[in-house]
Amino acid sequence: MTDTEPTPRGSAFVQSLERGLAVIRAFDAEHDELTLSDVARSTGLTRAAARRFLHTLVELGYMRTDGRLFALRPRILELGYAYLSSMGLPEVAQPHLETLVSQVHESSSVSVLDGEDVVYVARVPTKRIMTVTIAVGTRFPAYATSMGRVLLAAQPDDWLDEYLAKADLRPLTRYTTVEERLLRAILDQVRDQGWALVDQELEEGLRSIAVPVHDPDGAVVAAVNVSAHASRGSSDSIREELLPHLRTAAAAIEHDLRGSRR
Amino acid sequence: MTDTEPTPRGSAFVQSLERGLAVIRAFDAEHDELTLSDVARSTGLTRAAARRFLHTLVELGYMRTDGRLFALRPRILELGYAYLSSMGLPEVAQPHLETLVSQVHESSSVSVLDGEDVVYVARVPTKRIMTVTIAVGTRFPAYATSMGRVLLAAQPDDWLDEYLAKADLRPLTRYTTVEERLLRAILDQVRDQGWALVDQELEEGLRSIAVPVHDPDGAVVAAVNVSAHASRGSSDSIREELLPHLRTAAAAIEHDLRGSRR
Repeated sequence: MTDTEPTPRGSAFVQSLERGLAVIRAFDAEHDELTLSDVARSTGLTRAAARRFLHTLVELGYMRTDGRLFALRPRILELGYAYLSSMGLPEVAQPHLETLVSQVHESSSVSVLDGEDVVYVARVPTKRIMTVTIAVGTRFPAYATSMGRVLLAAQPDDWLDEYLAKADLRPLTRYTTVEERLLRAILDQVRDQGWALVDQELEEGLRSIAVPVHDPDGAVVAAVNVSAHASRGSSDSIREELLPHLRTAAAAIEHDLRGSRR
Repeated sequence: MTDTEPTPRGSAFVQSLERGLAVIRAFDAEHDELTLSDVARSTGLTRAAARRFLHTLVELGYMRTDGRLFALRPRILELGYAYLSSMGLPEVAQPHLETLVSQVHESSSVSVLDGEDVVYVARVPTKRIMTVTIAVGTRFPAYATSMGRVLLAAQPDDWLDEYLAKADLRPLTRYTTVEERLLRAILDQVRDQGWALVDQELEEGLRSIAVPVHDPDGAVVAAVNVSAHASRGSSDSIREELLPHLRTAAAAIEHDLRGSRR
Protein backbone atom coordinates (compact mmCIF):
# COMPACT_ATOMS: atom_id res chain seq x y z
CA MET A 1 0.00 0.00 0.00
CA THR A 2 1.46 3.32 -1.02
CA ASP A 3 0.74 6.70 0.46
CA THR A 4 -0.88 7.85 -2.76
CA GLU A 5 -3.40 5.02 -2.92
CA PRO A 6 -6.93 6.40 -3.22
CA THR A 7 -8.74 6.31 0.10
CA PRO A 8 -12.40 6.66 1.03
CA ARG A 9 -11.67 10.36 1.57
CA GLY A 10 -10.83 10.83 -2.12
CA SER A 11 -7.80 10.57 -4.31
CA ALA A 12 -6.54 14.06 -3.45
CA PHE A 13 -6.24 13.10 0.22
CA VAL A 14 -2.69 12.50 1.47
CA GLN A 15 -3.06 9.75 4.03
CA SER A 16 0.60 9.99 5.07
CA LEU A 17 0.04 13.52 6.28
CA GLU A 18 -3.04 12.52 8.27
CA ARG A 19 -1.10 9.67 9.86
CA GLY A 20 1.97 11.78 10.63
CA LEU A 21 -0.19 14.39 12.36
CA ALA A 22 -1.92 11.61 14.32
CA VAL A 23 1.52 10.49 15.55
CA ILE A 24 2.24 14.04 16.77
CA ARG A 25 -1.15 14.19 18.52
CA ALA A 26 -0.43 10.90 20.32
CA PHE A 27 1.83 12.94 22.64
CA ASP A 28 0.27 15.10 25.38
CA ALA A 29 0.66 16.02 29.04
CA GLU A 30 -0.16 12.51 30.22
CA HIS A 31 1.85 10.87 27.41
CA ASP A 32 4.98 12.96 26.97
CA GLU A 33 7.28 9.99 26.32
CA LEU A 34 6.03 7.07 24.25
CA THR A 35 7.55 3.89 22.85
CA LEU A 36 7.04 2.75 19.28
CA SER A 37 4.45 0.26 20.55
CA ASP A 38 2.60 3.00 22.47
CA VAL A 39 2.38 5.14 19.33
CA ALA A 40 1.25 2.22 17.16
CA ARG A 41 -1.44 1.35 19.70
CA SER A 42 -2.79 4.87 20.18
CA THR A 43 -2.83 5.75 16.46
CA GLY A 44 -3.94 2.38 15.11
CA LEU A 45 -0.91 2.26 12.80
CA THR A 46 1.21 -0.82 12.26
CA ARG A 47 4.52 -0.83 14.10
CA ALA A 48 6.33 -0.52 10.76
CA ALA A 49 4.30 2.52 9.75
CA ALA A 50 4.59 4.12 13.20
CA ARG A 51 8.36 3.62 13.04
CA ARG A 52 8.58 5.41 9.68
CA PHE A 53 6.60 8.41 10.92
CA LEU A 54 8.51 8.63 14.20
CA HIS A 55 11.88 8.49 12.45
CA THR A 56 10.77 11.10 9.92
CA LEU A 57 9.76 13.41 12.78
CA VAL A 58 13.11 12.79 14.50
CA GLU A 59 14.97 13.58 11.29
CA LEU A 60 12.97 16.79 10.81
CA GLY A 61 13.85 17.92 14.35
CA TYR A 62 10.30 17.69 15.70
CA MET A 63 10.97 14.71 17.94
CA ARG A 64 13.80 13.22 19.94
CA THR A 65 14.47 9.63 20.95
CA ASP A 66 16.90 7.72 23.14
CA GLY A 67 16.35 4.65 20.95
CA ARG A 68 13.36 3.45 22.96
CA LEU A 69 11.31 6.43 24.11
CA PHE A 70 10.15 9.23 21.81
CA ALA A 71 9.21 12.78 22.86
CA LEU A 72 8.30 16.01 21.08
CA ARG A 73 10.92 18.73 20.70
CA PRO A 74 10.35 22.51 20.93
CA ARG A 75 10.51 22.87 17.15
CA ILE A 76 6.96 21.48 17.08
CA LEU A 77 5.83 24.93 18.29
CA GLU A 78 6.48 26.23 14.78
CA LEU A 79 3.28 24.55 13.67
CA GLY A 80 0.71 25.81 16.17
CA TYR A 81 2.26 29.20 16.64
CA ALA A 82 2.12 29.98 12.96
CA TYR A 83 -1.61 30.20 13.55
CA LEU A 84 -1.41 32.24 16.75
CA SER A 85 1.02 34.74 15.30
CA SER A 86 -1.01 35.01 12.11
CA MET A 87 -4.14 36.00 14.01
CA GLY A 88 -2.55 38.70 16.16
CA LEU A 89 -5.41 38.59 18.64
CA PRO A 90 -3.62 36.59 21.39
CA GLU A 91 -0.75 39.04 21.58
CA VAL A 92 -3.13 41.99 21.60
CA ALA A 93 -5.33 40.40 24.27
CA GLN A 94 -2.69 39.06 26.66
CA PRO A 95 -1.80 42.29 28.54
CA HIS A 96 -5.49 43.14 28.98
CA LEU A 97 -6.20 39.67 30.37
CA GLU A 98 -3.36 40.24 32.83
CA THR A 99 -4.88 43.51 34.00
CA LEU A 100 -8.29 41.89 34.29
CA VAL A 101 -6.94 38.94 36.30
CA SER A 102 -5.06 41.28 38.63
CA GLN A 103 -8.34 43.13 39.26
CA VAL A 104 -10.74 40.24 39.76
CA HIS A 105 -8.35 37.49 40.93
CA GLU A 106 -9.97 34.90 38.68
CA SER A 107 -8.67 33.27 35.49
CA SER A 108 -9.50 34.82 32.14
CA SER A 109 -9.37 33.49 28.57
CA VAL A 110 -10.00 34.51 25.00
CA SER A 111 -11.44 31.98 22.60
CA VAL A 112 -12.64 31.72 19.02
CA LEU A 113 -15.24 29.47 17.43
CA ASP A 114 -13.92 26.49 15.43
CA GLY A 115 -16.72 24.33 14.08
CA GLU A 116 -18.85 23.32 17.07
CA ASP A 117 -16.16 24.08 19.65
CA VAL A 118 -14.58 27.05 21.31
CA VAL A 119 -10.77 27.00 21.25
CA TYR A 120 -8.72 28.95 23.78
CA VAL A 121 -6.21 31.24 22.03
CA ALA A 122 -5.04 33.22 25.07
CA ARG A 123 -5.27 32.56 28.78
CA VAL A 124 -4.06 34.07 32.03
CA PRO A 125 -4.52 31.90 35.13
CA THR A 126 -4.86 33.37 38.61
CA LYS A 127 -2.05 33.04 41.07
CA ARG A 128 -4.33 31.24 43.50
CA ILE A 129 -3.37 27.72 44.47
CA MET A 130 -6.63 26.36 43.16
CA THR A 131 -6.70 27.58 39.61
CA VAL A 132 -8.68 26.19 36.73
CA THR A 133 -5.77 25.02 34.63
CA ILE A 134 -6.75 25.08 30.98
CA ALA A 135 -4.08 25.61 28.35
CA VAL A 136 -4.33 27.50 25.10
CA GLY A 137 -5.51 25.17 22.32
CA THR A 138 -8.01 23.40 24.57
CA ARG A 139 -11.46 22.85 23.03
CA PHE A 140 -14.88 22.76 24.66
CA PRO A 141 -18.31 22.30 23.11
CA ALA A 142 -19.61 25.79 22.38
CA TYR A 143 -23.18 25.23 23.64
CA ALA A 144 -22.08 24.61 27.26
CA THR A 145 -19.64 27.50 27.70
CA SER A 146 -20.15 31.23 28.23
CA MET A 147 -17.70 32.14 25.45
CA GLY A 148 -19.32 29.60 23.13
CA ARG A 149 -22.75 31.12 23.71
CA VAL A 150 -21.46 34.61 23.00
CA LEU A 151 -19.90 33.33 19.76
CA LEU A 152 -22.95 31.27 18.75
CA ALA A 153 -25.26 34.23 19.41
CA ALA A 154 -23.25 36.27 16.91
CA GLN A 155 -23.68 33.79 14.05
CA PRO A 156 -26.15 34.32 11.20
CA ASP A 157 -29.53 32.57 11.58
CA ASP A 158 -28.90 29.96 8.87
CA TRP A 159 -25.53 29.04 10.39
CA LEU A 160 -27.20 28.65 13.78
CA ASP A 161 -30.01 26.51 12.34
CA GLU A 162 -27.46 24.18 10.79
CA TYR A 163 -25.41 24.08 14.01
CA LEU A 164 -28.39 23.25 16.19
CA ALA A 165 -29.60 20.61 13.73
CA LYS A 166 -26.33 18.70 13.82
CA ALA A 167 -24.81 19.57 17.22
CA ASP A 168 -24.61 16.76 19.74
CA LEU A 169 -26.16 18.51 22.76
CA ARG A 170 -25.22 16.27 25.67
CA PRO A 171 -25.49 16.90 29.41
CA LEU A 172 -21.94 17.51 30.69
CA THR A 173 -23.25 18.12 34.20
CA ARG A 174 -26.72 17.86 35.68
CA TYR A 175 -27.18 21.58 34.87
CA THR A 176 -26.31 21.53 31.14
CA THR A 177 -28.94 22.98 28.79
CA VAL A 178 -29.47 20.36 26.08
CA GLU A 179 -32.91 21.29 24.78
CA GLU A 180 -32.65 23.03 21.42
CA ARG A 181 -35.64 25.32 22.00
CA LEU A 182 -34.26 26.45 25.35
CA LEU A 183 -30.77 26.97 23.96
CA ARG A 184 -32.20 29.16 21.18
CA ALA A 185 -34.00 31.29 23.77
CA ILE A 186 -30.79 31.63 25.78
CA LEU A 187 -28.82 32.67 22.68
CA ASP A 188 -31.47 35.28 21.85
CA GLN A 189 -31.08 36.68 25.35
CA VAL A 190 -27.26 36.63 25.09
CA ARG A 191 -27.47 38.56 21.81
CA ASP A 192 -29.75 41.17 23.40
CA GLN A 193 -27.86 41.66 26.65
CA GLY A 194 -24.32 41.36 25.22
CA TRP A 195 -23.02 38.83 27.70
CA ALA A 196 -23.45 35.15 28.67
CA LEU A 197 -23.26 33.53 32.06
CA VAL A 198 -22.96 29.75 32.38
CA ASP A 199 -23.66 28.28 35.79
CA GLN A 200 -22.01 24.87 36.23
CA GLU A 201 -23.17 23.62 32.82
CA LEU A 202 -19.65 22.70 31.66
CA GLU A 203 -18.29 21.53 34.99
CA GLU A 204 -19.91 21.35 38.42
CA GLY A 205 -18.62 24.05 40.75
CA LEU A 206 -17.56 26.33 37.89
CA ARG A 207 -19.27 29.51 36.75
CA SER A 208 -18.17 31.63 33.83
CA ILE A 209 -19.20 34.93 32.31
CA ALA A 210 -18.24 36.10 28.80
CA VAL A 211 -18.62 39.08 26.47
CA PRO A 212 -17.88 39.42 22.73
CA VAL A 213 -14.77 40.98 21.18
CA HIS A 214 -15.54 42.90 17.97
CA ASP A 215 -13.12 43.60 15.14
CA PRO A 216 -12.86 47.11 13.68
CA ASP A 217 -15.73 46.28 11.29
CA GLY A 218 -18.01 45.40 14.20
CA ALA A 219 -17.97 41.63 13.63
CA VAL A 220 -17.64 39.36 16.67
CA VAL A 221 -14.27 37.65 16.23
CA ALA A 222 -13.69 36.26 19.71
CA ALA A 223 -15.06 36.09 23.22
CA VAL A 224 -13.35 36.91 26.52
CA ASN A 225 -14.41 35.37 29.80
CA VAL A 226 -13.72 35.14 33.50
CA SER A 227 -14.34 31.84 35.24
CA ALA A 228 -14.80 31.40 38.96
CA HIS A 229 -15.43 28.59 41.37
CA ALA A 230 -18.95 28.48 42.72
CA SER A 231 -17.55 29.31 46.17
CA ARG A 232 -16.85 32.83 44.88
CA GLY A 233 -20.53 33.66 45.10
CA SER A 234 -23.86 33.41 43.33
CA SER A 235 -24.41 33.97 39.63
CA ASP A 236 -25.85 37.38 40.48
CA SER A 237 -22.80 38.44 42.45
CA ILE A 238 -20.48 37.18 39.71
CA ARG A 239 -22.36 39.29 37.17
CA GLU A 240 -22.31 42.36 39.41
CA GLU A 241 -18.65 42.04 40.40
CA LEU A 242 -17.07 40.75 37.21
CA LEU A 243 -19.08 41.99 34.24
CA PRO A 244 -17.95 45.65 34.47
CA HIS A 245 -14.27 44.62 34.54
CA LEU A 246 -14.84 42.14 31.73
CA ARG A 247 -16.48 44.80 29.55
CA THR A 248 -13.59 47.18 30.20
CA ALA A 249 -11.09 44.48 29.15
CA ALA A 250 -13.04 43.68 25.97
CA ALA A 251 -13.20 47.38 25.08
CA ALA A 252 -9.43 47.71 25.61
CA ILE A 253 -8.77 44.68 23.37
CA GLU A 254 -11.08 46.12 20.70
CA HIS A 255 -9.29 49.47 20.94
CA ASP A 256 -5.90 47.81 20.39
CA LEU A 257 -7.26 45.69 17.53
CA ARG A 258 -8.17 48.92 15.77
CA GLY A 259 -4.66 50.20 16.41
CA SER A 260 -2.91 47.05 15.18
CA ARG A 261 -4.92 46.81 11.99
CA ARG A 262 -2.68 46.41 9.00
CA MET B 1 6.64 9.50 -8.19
CA THR B 2 4.99 8.06 -5.11
CA ASP B 3 5.31 9.28 -1.57
CA THR B 4 7.08 6.09 -0.54
CA GLU B 5 9.83 6.38 -3.11
CA PRO B 6 13.24 6.21 -1.43
CA THR B 7 14.73 9.65 -0.99
CA PRO B 8 18.24 10.86 -0.18
CA ARG B 9 17.18 10.91 3.46
CA GLY B 10 16.64 7.14 3.48
CA SER B 11 13.84 4.74 2.73
CA ALA B 12 12.23 5.11 6.16
CA PHE B 13 11.68 8.83 5.53
CA VAL B 14 8.10 9.84 4.74
CA GLN B 15 8.45 12.72 2.32
CA SER B 16 4.71 13.41 2.30
CA LEU B 17 4.85 14.26 5.98
CA GLU B 18 7.80 16.61 5.48
CA ARG B 19 5.96 18.33 2.64
CA GLY B 20 2.68 18.61 4.53
CA LEU B 21 4.44 20.22 7.49
CA ALA B 22 6.19 22.62 5.10
CA VAL B 23 2.77 23.66 3.80
CA ILE B 24 1.65 24.44 7.38
CA ARG B 25 4.82 26.43 8.02
CA ALA B 26 4.23 28.51 4.88
CA PHE B 27 1.61 30.40 6.92
CA ASP B 28 2.72 32.99 9.47
CA ALA B 29 1.94 36.50 10.70
CA GLU B 30 2.93 38.09 7.41
CA HIS B 31 1.32 35.34 5.33
CA ASP B 32 -1.91 34.41 7.06
CA GLU B 33 -3.90 33.92 3.86
CA LEU B 34 -2.24 32.29 0.87
CA THR B 35 -3.35 31.12 -2.55
CA LEU B 36 -2.41 27.75 -4.00
CA SER B 37 0.24 29.51 -6.09
CA ASP B 38 1.68 31.25 -3.01
CA VAL B 39 2.00 27.93 -1.20
CA ALA B 40 3.56 26.20 -4.21
CA ARG B 41 6.07 29.02 -4.56
CA SER B 42 7.09 29.22 -0.90
CA THR B 43 7.37 25.45 -0.41
CA GLY B 44 8.89 24.58 -3.77
CA LEU B 45 6.11 22.04 -4.39
CA THR B 46 4.32 21.66 -7.71
CA ARG B 47 0.85 23.22 -7.83
CA ALA B 48 -0.65 19.72 -8.04
CA ALA B 49 1.21 18.57 -4.93
CA ALA B 50 0.46 21.78 -3.02
CA ARG B 51 -3.22 21.36 -3.88
CA ARG B 52 -3.28 17.82 -2.47
CA PHE B 53 -1.67 18.89 0.81
CA LEU B 54 -3.89 21.95 1.18
CA HIS B 55 -7.05 19.96 0.55
CA THR B 56 -5.93 17.27 2.98
CA LEU B 57 -5.40 19.93 5.67
CA VAL B 58 -8.83 21.44 4.90
CA GLU B 59 -10.43 18.02 5.18
CA LEU B 60 -8.68 17.34 8.51
CA GLY B 61 -9.98 20.66 9.90
CA TYR B 62 -6.55 22.31 10.15
CA MET B 63 -7.20 24.80 7.37
CA ARG B 64 -10.07 26.71 5.83
CA THR B 65 -10.53 28.04 2.32
CA ASP B 66 -12.97 30.22 0.42
CA GLY B 67 -11.97 28.43 -2.79
CA ARG B 68 -9.09 30.79 -3.50
CA LEU B 69 -7.40 31.79 -0.24
CA PHE B 70 -6.27 29.28 2.39
CA ALA B 71 -5.73 30.01 6.11
CA LEU B 72 -4.93 27.97 9.22
CA ARG B 73 -7.73 27.08 11.64
CA PRO B 74 -7.48 26.97 15.44
CA ARG B 75 -7.32 23.15 15.42
CA ILE B 76 -3.69 23.52 14.34
CA LEU B 77 -2.96 24.45 17.98
CA GLU B 78 -3.38 20.77 18.87
CA LEU B 79 0.04 20.13 17.38
CA GLY B 80 2.27 22.68 19.10
CA TYR B 81 0.41 22.69 22.37
CA ALA B 82 0.79 18.96 22.84
CA TYR B 83 4.43 19.82 23.45
CA LEU B 84 3.77 22.77 25.74
CA SER B 85 1.26 20.88 27.87
CA SER B 86 3.55 17.86 28.04
CA MET B 87 6.42 19.90 29.47
CA GLY B 88 4.40 21.63 32.20
CA LEU B 89 7.03 24.33 32.55
CA PRO B 90 5.22 27.14 30.67
CA GLU B 91 2.13 26.86 32.85
CA VAL B 92 4.24 26.77 36.01
CA ALA B 93 6.35 29.74 34.88
CA GLN B 94 3.64 32.05 33.54
CA PRO B 95 2.33 33.52 36.83
CA HIS B 96 5.89 34.15 38.05
CA LEU B 97 6.77 35.93 34.82
CA GLU B 98 3.69 38.10 35.34
CA THR B 99 4.83 39.04 38.83
CA LEU B 100 8.33 39.76 37.56
CA VAL B 101 7.08 41.94 34.70
CA SER B 102 4.81 43.88 37.07
CA GLN B 103 7.87 44.56 39.26
CA VAL B 104 10.45 45.53 36.66
CA HIS B 105 8.20 46.81 33.83
CA GLU B 106 10.21 44.96 31.20
CA SER B 107 9.32 41.86 29.14
CA SER B 108 10.28 38.43 30.47
CA SER B 109 10.57 35.02 28.80
CA VAL B 110 11.40 31.41 29.53
CA SER B 111 13.22 29.38 26.92
CA VAL B 112 14.74 25.95 26.43
CA LEU B 113 17.64 24.78 24.28
CA ASP B 114 16.74 22.99 21.03
CA GLY B 115 19.81 22.10 19.02
CA GLU B 116 21.76 25.31 18.49
CA ASP B 117 18.82 27.60 19.24
CA VAL B 118 16.86 28.83 22.20
CA VAL B 119 13.09 28.50 21.80
CA TYR B 120 10.69 30.67 23.78
CA VAL B 121 8.15 28.51 25.67
CA ALA B 122 6.58 31.25 27.81
CA ARG B 123 6.57 35.01 27.52
CA VAL B 124 4.97 38.00 29.22
CA PRO B 125 5.35 41.31 27.39
CA THR B 126 5.26 44.64 29.20
CA LYS B 127 2.31 46.92 28.79
CA ARG B 128 4.55 49.67 27.44
CA ILE B 129 3.79 50.90 23.97
CA MET B 130 7.27 50.00 22.79
CA THR B 131 7.52 46.34 23.68
CA VAL B 132 9.84 43.79 22.21
CA THR B 133 7.24 41.59 20.59
CA ILE B 134 8.48 38.03 20.43
CA ALA B 135 5.98 35.18 20.48
CA VAL B 136 6.35 31.79 22.08
CA GLY B 137 7.93 29.35 19.63
CA THR B 138 10.37 31.93 18.29
CA ARG B 139 13.97 30.73 17.90
CA PHE B 140 17.23 32.62 18.28
CA PRO B 141 20.82 31.37 18.00
CA ALA B 142 21.89 30.38 21.51
CA TYR B 143 25.37 31.97 21.40
CA ALA B 144 24.03 35.54 21.00
CA THR B 145 21.33 35.50 23.70
CA SER B 146 21.48 35.68 27.50
CA MET B 147 19.21 32.65 27.92
CA GLY B 148 21.23 30.74 25.33
CA ARG B 149 24.47 31.40 27.20
CA VAL B 150 22.94 30.24 30.47
CA LEU B 151 21.76 27.05 28.76
CA LEU B 152 25.04 26.47 26.89
CA ALA B 153 27.03 27.00 30.10
CA ALA B 154 25.08 24.15 31.70
CA GLN B 155 25.95 21.61 29.00
CA PRO B 156 28.59 18.89 29.47
CA ASP B 157 32.06 19.67 28.07
CA ASP B 158 31.86 17.22 25.18
CA TRP B 159 28.46 18.57 24.11
CA LEU B 160 29.87 22.10 24.20
CA ASP B 161 32.96 21.10 22.20
CA GLU B 162 30.74 19.63 19.51
CA TYR B 163 28.46 22.68 19.54
CA LEU B 164 31.33 25.14 19.21
CA ALA B 165 32.93 23.06 16.45
CA LYS B 166 29.84 23.12 14.25
CA ALA B 167 27.98 26.29 15.33
CA ASP B 168 27.79 29.06 12.77
CA LEU B 169 28.95 31.99 14.93
CA ARG B 170 27.96 35.02 12.89
CA PRO B 171 27.87 38.70 13.89
CA LEU B 172 24.20 39.65 14.30
CA THR B 173 25.17 43.17 15.36
CA ARG B 174 28.52 44.91 15.56
CA TYR B 175 28.71 43.75 19.20
CA THR B 176 28.16 40.00 18.72
CA THR B 177 30.85 37.72 20.16
CA VAL B 178 31.81 35.32 17.36
CA GLU B 179 35.27 34.18 18.46
CA GLU B 180 35.13 30.66 19.86
CA ARG B 181 37.85 31.21 22.45
CA LEU B 182 36.13 34.33 23.75
CA LEU B 183 32.73 32.64 23.83
CA ARG B 184 34.19 29.75 25.86
CA ALA B 185 35.60 32.23 28.40
CA ILE B 186 32.20 33.96 28.63
CA LEU B 187 30.42 30.65 29.18
CA ASP B 188 32.89 29.74 31.94
CA GLN B 189 32.11 33.04 33.61
CA VAL B 190 28.36 32.53 33.19
CA ARG B 191 28.64 29.09 34.81
CA ASP B 192 30.56 30.55 37.76
CA GLN B 193 28.40 33.59 38.39
CA GLY B 194 25.03 31.97 37.64
CA TRP B 195 23.74 34.59 35.23
CA ALA B 196 24.41 35.96 31.74
CA LEU B 197 24.06 39.48 30.41
CA VAL B 198 24.05 40.15 26.69
CA ASP B 199 24.59 43.75 25.62
CA GLN B 200 23.20 44.40 22.11
CA GLU B 201 24.74 41.23 20.66
CA LEU B 202 21.41 39.91 19.32
CA GLU B 203 19.90 43.25 18.35
CA GLU B 204 21.23 46.78 18.66
CA GLY B 205 19.54 48.71 21.42
CA LEU B 206 18.51 45.57 23.32
CA ARG B 207 20.05 44.25 26.53
CA SER B 208 19.02 41.05 28.24
CA ILE B 209 19.89 39.29 31.48
CA ALA B 210 19.13 35.61 32.22
CA VAL B 211 19.45 33.03 34.98
CA PRO B 212 18.99 29.25 34.89
CA VAL B 213 15.91 27.30 36.02
CA HIS B 214 16.77 23.98 37.67
CA ASP B 215 14.55 20.92 37.87
CA PRO B 216 14.14 19.10 41.22
CA ASP B 217 17.26 17.03 40.41
CA GLY B 218 19.36 20.16 40.02
CA ALA B 219 19.66 19.97 36.23
CA VAL B 220 19.26 23.20 34.23
CA VAL B 221 16.08 22.68 32.17
CA ALA B 222 15.36 26.25 31.09
CA ALA B 223 16.43 29.86 31.39
CA VAL B 224 14.39 32.91 32.34
CA ASN B 225 15.30 36.41 31.23
CA VAL B 226 14.33 40.03 31.28
CA SER B 227 15.09 42.15 28.23
CA ALA B 228 15.28 45.92 28.19
CA HIS B 229 15.93 48.64 25.67
CA ALA B 230 19.32 50.25 26.03
CA SER B 231 17.58 53.48 27.05
CA ARG B 232 16.71 51.79 30.36
CA GLY B 233 20.28 52.21 31.53
CA SER B 234 23.75 50.71 31.43
CA SER B 235 24.56 47.02 31.70
CA ASP B 236 25.63 47.62 35.29
CA SER B 237 22.35 49.27 36.24
CA ILE B 238 20.38 46.50 34.52
CA ARG B 239 22.25 43.90 36.53
CA GLU B 240 21.78 45.80 39.77
CA GLU B 241 18.10 46.56 39.24
CA LEU B 242 16.90 43.41 37.51
CA LEU B 243 19.03 40.48 38.65
CA PRO B 244 17.59 40.24 42.20
CA HIS B 245 14.01 40.16 40.85
CA LEU B 246 15.01 37.67 38.17
CA ARG B 247 16.60 35.36 40.75
CA THR B 248 13.48 35.54 42.91
CA ALA B 249 11.32 34.61 39.91
CA ALA B 250 13.58 31.66 38.99
CA ALA B 251 13.50 30.41 42.59
CA ALA B 252 9.70 30.62 42.62
CA ILE B 253 9.47 28.66 39.36
CA GLU B 254 11.86 26.03 40.74
CA HIS B 255 9.78 25.78 43.90
CA ASP B 256 6.61 25.17 41.91
CA LEU B 257 8.36 22.64 39.66
CA ARG B 258 9.13 20.63 42.78
CA GLY B 259 5.50 20.85 43.82
CA SER B 260 4.14 19.86 40.41
CA ARG B 261 6.42 16.88 40.02
CA ARG B 262 4.48 13.80 39.07
